Amino acid sequence: MTLRNNFHKKCFNKGDIRPFVVEGHQVGLIKSDVLKQLVKYPEVFCIRDCEQTKQGLVELNPAFRDYNERTEQLEKVLRDLRSNGLFPALQGWRDEYFEVKSEHRALLKMERAATPLFGVRKYGVDINGYVRHPTQGLCIWLQQRSNTKETWPGKWDNMVGGGLSVGFGIKETAIKEAAEEASIPKDLVKNLVSAGCVSFYFESRQGLFPNTEYVFDLELPLDFIPHNADGEVQAFELLPAKECVERLFTPDFKTTSAPVVIDFLIRHGHITADDVVDFTQIVELLHVPLQSLYTYKSRMEHAQKQNKKILCSEDKNCNCAKPLENGGIKSRHN
Amino acid sequence: MTLRNNFHKKCFNKGDIRPFVVEGHQVGLIKSDVLKQLVKYPEVFCIRDCEQTKQGLVELNPAFRDYNERTEQLEKVLRDLRSNGLFPALQGWRDEYFEVKSEHRALLKMERAATPLFGVRKYGVDINGYVRHPTQGLCIWLQQRSNTKETWPGKWDNMVGGGLSVGFGIKETAIKEAAEEASIPKDLVKNLVSAGCVSFYFESRQGLFPNTEYVFDLELPLDFIPHNADGEVQAFELLPAKECVERLFTPDFKTTSAPVVIDFLIRHGHITADDVVDFTQIVELLHVPLQSLYTYKSRMEHAQKQNKKILCSEDKNCNCAKPLENGGIKSRHN
Repeated sequence: MTLRNNFHKKCFNKGDIRPFVVEGHQVGLIKSDVLKQLVKYPEVFCIRDCEQTKQGLVELNPAFRDYNERTEQLEKVLRDLRSNGLFPALQGWRDEYFEVKSEHRALLKMERAATPLFGVRKYGVDINGYVRHPTQGLCIWLQQRSNTKETWPGKWDNMVGGGLSVGFGIKETAIKEAAEEASIPKDLVKNLVSAGCVSFYFESRQGLFPNTEYVFDLELPLDFIPHNADGEVQAFELLPAKECVERLFTPDFKTTSAPVVIDFLIRHGHITADDVVDFTQIVELLHVPLQSLYTYKSRMEHAQKQNKKILCSEDKNCNCAKPLENGGIKSRHN
Repeated sequence: MTLRNNFHKKCFNKGDIRPFVVEGHQVGLIKSDVLKQLVKYPEVFCIRDCEQTKQGLVELNPAFRDYNERTEQLEKVLRDLRSNGLFPALQGWRDEYFEVKSEHRALLKMERAATPLFGVRKYGVDINGYVRHPTQGLCIWLQQRSNTKETWPGKWDNMVGGGLSVGFGIKETAIKEAAEEASIPKDLVKNLVSAGCVSFYFESRQGLFPNTEYVFDLELPLDFIPHNADGEVQAFELLPAKECVERLFTPDFKTTSAPVVIDFLIRHGHITADDVVDFTQIVELLHVPLQSLYTYKSRMEHAQKQNKKILCSEDKNCNCAKPLENGGIKSRHN
């Protein structure tokens, strides 16, 4: 399957990618083309080698005091980069924010269009709308994206999908998108079933896409026909599972939506281990451990412990209390 | 969740583990305690550093001609190790074979009880038997393993589960186990739905468990009660989803079966991203990319290419035709 090869290659090809660190937490990945531009803003980005891990990293100036200052300082740079016209990603500027978080804390918000440049993990929701047809069996509703959309215009896509935005819950986002994109009424959307998530890593001219999609299944009655309410969809089509698999592997299908449909077909018994040789690998690739790309903090702490041990064994009077990692940043900014 | 911590730690702690290579394909992982014993059989195992990757590896003697010779030679060693009584795993000898394969080819068969010592990827099937109860909602059938079973005696487990054996298909195994373990009749088992697989990596006193379980869902009528036919189960119990989650995290539940139940509860909307903070990481950990532990062949080929490039740049007359990896084994066996 082309999917396996595409994702496999792209997932493990990290090349010269540096962690993007905010307040000690790795929140992104920076490629060399972006790095080249960020060095021009030394008051905002500190580009250095970590003293503990010896690894190159890009850090948002830790002198910024809070969520708002970090957001504003970063946004100034983004607007500047946008006006320079160097990055196609920024031409899709949406005036829509994405919240950048550490494990449990919001650190700043960033214009959505800029997130691929910073390799920020993105989260979205997708709804697999399906029908159990009396003669055709399992059938799946697909949408065709509007030709005027900034990303993937005209491509076939899941019935409903959208990014998570600041202030909205996951199921809440799914319900909102179901109404906007496919006019699904409340009495039907109440049957939404949360069904897990798929995670994949994708690289393009626009940047890096370490994406996680929360997936929902929605069984629909035979006589329901979705229609678009927000102008972002030009058509809907109901396809038997088998035809859906065929369309999935054409260039007319949005690449980053294919994993969601494949996951659906696997969970519902339409792609099985007895039929597909690489079944196990495909399932593993639908759930790439993206967390393993964002481990700067734990690697740093590990290196710190190791270095402490070495120092202690060298210096018998060491009391192990002095901090070893103070960032070494002041010297670059003073 | 304890699950996350347990699996996460164990999955990334590879320590001093060597690839086990048969006919150029990595089929297993050898820990140092096993290595110490294998060095005593130099006519069967070649323990060396790969010339290309410089990594230590354990290779089954490549002079063995075919499937049968490899099987017989390995089995002699296993019987010898068993009689020495060094490995608890071998005390559970079953006279049941597991087929060791490269990506698309069977290489040898190995006594099932020995597979954890060689870190061979194991494959099994599991059936989530469930009921949609009119008042209690989704309920799940669990089995309690017989007290006389060699592994996990007396523990709670999925309704039906079993290892894949030589000559049986995946769904075929599920149907066979459904009849043996829970007496599920043909007219019910025809509703089996293939629902994907979970992959996890687990280490214990018995050895290494890089396991993949193919999962099936089976909705059962309210009035059906499973009963055991092969003496391997001492009880069955139907639990509402919520109580099932609680039991899962007690020591009474078979650790290696918990991922299957968690995957089921996630796919059916009973563990959701809005409720559980680490949801994405849990889903990723249910699908550990085990393939990344068995990459000796591709790393070797990559190193070979790199070395060729270096040699070519050093020697301008090089025609790049001579093989660089011939195993260097003869010298050890002649």
